[in-house]
Amino acid sequence: MPQGQPSVVPKDGLTTRQRRNRPLVLVHTGIGKGKSTAAFGLALRAWNQGWPIGVFQFVKSAKWKVGEENALKVLGASEQGGSVDWHKMGEGWSWIQRAPAEGETTNEDKAREGWEQVKRDLAAERYKLYVLDEFAYPLHWGWIDVEEVVAVLRDRPGTQHVVITGRNAPQPLLDFADLVTDMSKVKHPMDAGQKGQRGIEW
Amino acid sequence: MPQGQPSVVPKDGLTTRQRRNRPLVLVHTGIGKGKSTAAFGLALRAWNQGWPIGVFQFVKSAKWKVGEENALKVLGASEQGGSVDWHKMGEGWSWIQRAPAEGETTNEDKAREGWEQVKRDLAAERYKLYVLDEFAYPLHWGWIDVEEVVAVLRDRPGTQHVVITGRNAPQPLLDFADLVTDMSKVKHPMDAGQKGQRGIEW
Repeated sequence: MPQGQPSVVPKDGLTTRQRRNRPLVLVHTGIGKGKSTAAFGLALRAWNQGWPIGVFQFVKSAKWKVGEENALKVLGASEQGGSVDWHKMGEGWSWIQRAPAEGETTNEDKAREGWEQVKRDLAAERYKLYVLDEFAYPLHWGWIDVEEVVAVLRDRPGTQHVVITGRNAPQPLLDFADLVTDMSKVKHPMDAGQKGQRGIEW
Repeated sequence: MPQGQPSVVPKDGLTTRQRRNRPLVLVHTGIGKGKSTAAFGLALRAWNQGWPIGVFQFVKSAKWKVGEENALKVLGASEQGGSVDWHKMGEGWSWIQRAPAEGETTNEDKAREGWEQVKRDLAAERYKLYVLDEFAYPLHWGWIDVEEVVAVLRDRPGTQHVVITGRNAPQPLLDFADLVTDMSKVKHPMDAGQKGQRGIEW
């Protein structure tokens, strides 16, 4: 694709360099394939820039994304690009310091704990790219308040880019985001009875 | 995302295992972001399966996708997953054996040469995943005949998956493909005068 040109030059008093380094919030939503896949593809660029990357998976799943996870961990350990921390819900958030409560914590609790960690990392400017994978779901389900998320993202310090994926991203998040792509399903093999395939679906 | 279930079970006489290993043609089209990025994200899964991967970039560009290229080359050389061959148009297709003709070959020539190489590799079952990046453009421009492409893909031997990206993918290709995702632009920072950013756009 030829390099894009801005369709307007804003009167915001910023230089081109400042505009080039503005922290972005990107949302990949819609019912088609490629939302998470494109977010992990974006992480390859961030890695190549030497940026520290934090991945937060907000929906538990057994085998999905193991390819991306293994690849990004190998890249993060290669010392030829940025670092990669991979936080996975359902295997226990690694930062939980307290003893486990009576019985299991709920997925809702875990999602909230994940968001609390993201807030701490944003405040500490720990990463330069955050992949909040499937984060649209706990927002859509009302587990995490979208207005709070928008406020935290708006006030985040430094130059920290955030990519959020998942169906049904709530409108306040879409309104706030700098880039929104809707992945639409035109045709999918499962419509023709095709089962998920190793190497393609995970 | 929870694992998908087929909406119908086809009466094609195939077992589930056979259906799981059917070679697929995937198309990422539309005017939004994420078409190529999702294709390279898919390559991470293929790499993790140990598959040989061939990337063919059909549109010359100076700095776009250097992040994906560097990352996939590091992965391919890591010996922890599949191999990665990266073929780039505009730097000269590496397989051109003949001496350079008088003057430069045209981009149209180069695109056709690229497609001829893809045909040879498909016939030889050289890769298990082909990323034909921006291949929709030479098809849309009429440089390469889409009916021939569909015929070659239909008759390809073995289990070889092919991902094709780019705007304006021609209808015969969409009709033939197993999976089509349309990336729609909902909102893009360039609309607000944002310039392309290092680590985000390339």
